[in-house]
Amino acid sequence: MTLDPLSAFDNLKTHGRKLALLGSCSAVLGWDEQTGLPPAAANLRGDQLALLAGLRHEQITQPNYREWLEIALDSPLNRDPESDSAAILRALKRDLDRARKLPQTLVEELARTTSIAQSEWVAARAENHFNRFKPWLEKIFELKRQESACLKEGTDAASPYDPLLDEYEPGLTTQALEPMFSALKAELKPLVDQVAEHCRGKEFERILKRSFPTDRQRVFCEAAAAGVGFDFSAGRLDIAAHPFCSGFGPGDCRITTHYHETSLSDAFYGVLHEVGHGLYEQGLPADAFGTPLGESVSLGVHESQSRLWENLVGRDRGFWTYWLPIARGVFHEAFADVSLDAILSAVNVVEPSLIRIRADESTYNQHIIVRFELERDLIQGDLAVADVPAAWRDKYQALLGVTPSTDAEGCMQDIHWSAGLIGYFPTYTLGNLYAARLFQQAEHDLGDLQTAFSRGDFAGLLGWLRDRIHRHGRRFAPADLIRRAAPSAPTGHKPLIDMLRARYQRIHGI
Amino acid sequence: MTLDPLSAFDNLKTHGRKLALLGSCSAVLGWDEQTGLPPAAANLRGDQLALLAGLRHEQITQPNYREWLEIALDSPLNRDPESDSAAILRALKRDLDRARKLPQTLVEELARTTSIAQSEWVAARAENHFNRFKPWLEKIFELKRQESACLKEGTDAASPYDPLLDEYEPGLTTQALEPMFSALKAELKPLVDQVAEHCRGKEFERILKRSFPTDRQRVFCEAAAAGVGFDFSAGRLDIAAHPFCSGFGPGDCRITTHYHETSLSDAFYGVLHEVGHGLYEQGLPADAFGTPLGESVSLGVHESQSRLWENLVGRDRGFWTYWLPIARGVFHEAFADVSLDAILSAVNVVEPSLIRIRADESTYNQHIIVRFELERDLIQGDLAVADVPAAWRDKYQALLGVTPSTDAEGCMQDIHWSAGLIGYFPTYTLGNLYAARLFQQAEHDLGDLQTAFSRGDFAGLLGWLRDRIHRHGRRFAPADLIRRAAPSAPTGHKPLIDMLRARYQRIHGI
Repeated sequence: MTLDPLSAFDNLKTHGRKLALLGSCSAVLGWDEQTGLPPAAANLRGDQLALLAGLRHEQITQPNYREWLEIALDSPLNRDPESDSAAILRALKRDLDRARKLPQTLVEELARTTSIAQSEWVAARAENHFNRFKPWLEKIFELKRQESACLKEGTDAASPYDPLLDEYEPGLTTQALEPMFSALKAELKPLVDQVAEHCRGKEFERILKRSFPTDRQRVFCEAAAAGVGFDFSAGRLDIAAHPFCSGFGPGDCRITTHYHETSLSDAFYGVLHEVGHGLYEQGLPADAFGTPLGESVSLGVHESQSRLWENLVGRDRGFWTYWLPIARGVFHEAFADVSLDAILSAVNVVEPSLIRIRADESTYNQHIIVRFELERDLIQGDLAVADVPAAWRDKYQALLGVTPSTDAEGCMQDIHWSAGLIGYFPTYTLGNLYAARLFQQAEHDLGDLQTAFSRGDFAGLLGWLRDRIHRHGRRFAPADLIRRAAPSAPTGHKPLIDMLRARYQRIHGI
Repeated sequence: MTLDPLSAFDNLKTHGRKLALLGSCSAVLGWDEQTGLPPAAANLRGDQLALLAGLRHEQITQPNYREWLEIALDSPLNRDPESDSAAILRALKRDLDRARKLPQTLVEELARTTSIAQSEWVAARAENHFNRFKPWLEKIFELKRQESACLKEGTDAASPYDPLLDEYEPGLTTQALEPMFSALKAELKPLVDQVAEHCRGKEFERILKRSFPTDRQRVFCEAAAAGVGFDFSAGRLDIAAHPFCSGFGPGDCRITTHYHETSLSDAFYGVLHEVGHGLYEQGLPADAFGTPLGESVSLGVHESQSRLWENLVGRDRGFWTYWLPIARGVFHEAFADVSLDAILSAVNVVEPSLIRIRADESTYNQHIIVRFELERDLIQGDLAVADVPAAWRDKYQALLGVTPSTDAEGCMQDIHWSAGLIGYFPTYTLGNLYAARLFQQAEHDLGDLQTAFSRGDFAGLLGWLRDRIHRHGRRFAPADLIRRAAPSAPTGHKPLIDMLRARYQRIHGI
């Protein structure tokens, strides 16, 4: 007997909720692993997480799932494309279609290969020994090309890089990305060169390298997090080796940071960044938990939220007009002589460097563009893995004017490729592009945001983001979501470049 | 086709491991709920725990489990009763036999009833309204009598209270317990009266009610925990509303406490108590995790470990000879004028009172004996629930010389009965009795422990407990385990009474 559509849809929702809850249990254990696991418990935690992953896998491979989905898709529940049910079914169909195209053998081989490759990467990087890493990188790009070929079937993808992009940013294509990144690259270089030249030798950042007791940093970071709207009754801020944000589900979103006694900016901007992610998680509709409407839509959109709060809000005059007096109250001597102009110069330094994760806001995009061009060429067969180190050095010299003296601080600096994350890097810069579009639209809709910020009022912007982005979950494709959210802002690279140029002009006077 | 015994045994072990890991995931979430859950996440946490409980239930009701167990029981694996496999099978058989005797309807009705009864208890206690609680208490004792009748079948239990005791202390009978408790009751009363008389009006405890900054208390508690052997590389100490110990599995045991600025003893003895539980958990054999040989054997034995460290170690001269100078270093002014005699008098005060959880070491047993006699009589049908308040008052007056003026601080003070925990209270005093036997044997085997303690050497005692108790898991029945561990110590009440009498004589000079 065939199930009626409503029961099929109920089954899908129950199934989704179970999956979400299992994922959420794993997330709690993962958070605990980063924040408080006793060293001797590493094996136990591994076994616990493996068990939960196994149970999740059992759920995912539920044999009736496809039937439920087909019944529901072929029913009135899917008639009105604007309806919640149709939006849910669309997202579930996308996920299943992708999953079904991948042969189990390929999935397993990728899991096995990337697991070994990650430890090989750690060792090869420590030894600065690219040839040790090379066979693994070759194997991974070969497998990802196979994955792409499987996913490409039945689509009109123009590039084999498209299906990989689509994993992290549904609907994004190489063709759409290339002109944006090319234009950004062309306009960013003269701007970066000019501002970097201005900053050279000025040591603006010295005021952020004074002594900041870590317990006071915690107080200041928590105050700022709460001040911009992070809800501590539904979240926490803890210490971990690497900053991250983990949204467990409604009412529980946890962010982490790491405090260094002699650097305020690492922890503080780390927190603002994770708070941006956290605000998105806290803004997802609680009653849709376990369905695609309760999930974040893409990495690019997630990153747009973190970058927006970290950079567009947190590095401008309005923000520091309000927070500088508070910082003076918290840090006393260390901030006693710090003027608003001084702090703004300090947090807007531009300086080309070798390492992505330590890059400033502007040059960061250049690091990303290098990686995008290389991995696209690798996937398209236009570049051999053996030639990556040289290509990396050439591109860094051309774009950033610096050349790594070792591969460890060159093409082996990131974990992503060893983990099989190809098509992931572009979402970082995409997030910056989205953030600038959203911010431009918000200023258009809400009026002078800097004045509001200088009064400590961040609720207007947050409410606007809740309305335009957070509450929609996966209802729209990322590009559509941003288009609907920011209809008057230009697409592409322009809002980001304009915004950076204007800010550097205001702050550095150039 | 029937499974071969080795495969059946392997299935049992895999099954046990999965159950243990699921339980351990729930324990992490439970710990997090007590130590750091954002208030808004209560529902999410409930859903997560319910899901894990459901998955555990699916495992427990695995249809082939009984067949595997029967095949293994009826095989050479079960031939040598001293073998690991036979010990494992014995414990699994005990658990299954108990579970199979209980009809699903009764299990569900108990779960439902105790769930409501607990909130009714909270409300009734707040209103001091016994008649509101009475129907629930009647229902619970009725259901527990049914449970007892089911469990009694096929056994030679003399009292309907036996199967309930057996839940928490396998093998314990009313017949074995009564003479121990009667003798203890008879000998404890004159001792308590005499020491309480000596302490009256002396205010020995004032030195523990000074100002103790909570961050220093934490330092001191952690130092003492590590000092007696708690392994912080395999555990943590955190803050929670109620102190507890949760052993997640090999390498991860977490204890909690609660600091009060104007009381050192609450947090400190709370920590020593939980450390005792934690040392047991940390001493269970890691490679037996997921089998009965990796589990603690009973509540009584668990409590023997906590009471031993809290009281027999932590309230005597050797312990404070070593820790008092450290306490002076940590607390400065608050302890500057505190002599060894003063601290020993302070932590050995005896004072009859109304509330069990605030009772001193000695009168605590009188609180337990009252509860034991009442719940035994209720189960045996010799007492009606309606008569509990009066019986409670009479017994408190007779034994402790105090009478509660309300039922809220009388028979409604504890959560246990509302939660269906009948037969649980005796394990607290049983733990004290076991602890005294163990300690007497350890002194016999290891020589003068006080001298070792006064040098800060607790490793000898811990090693002895590891060897005699911890490493055995559920290999032996609790009474056998204690008998084998302490062959020269008398059974029953004598070691505890002798030990208390001798200590009060040394410290209070009476």
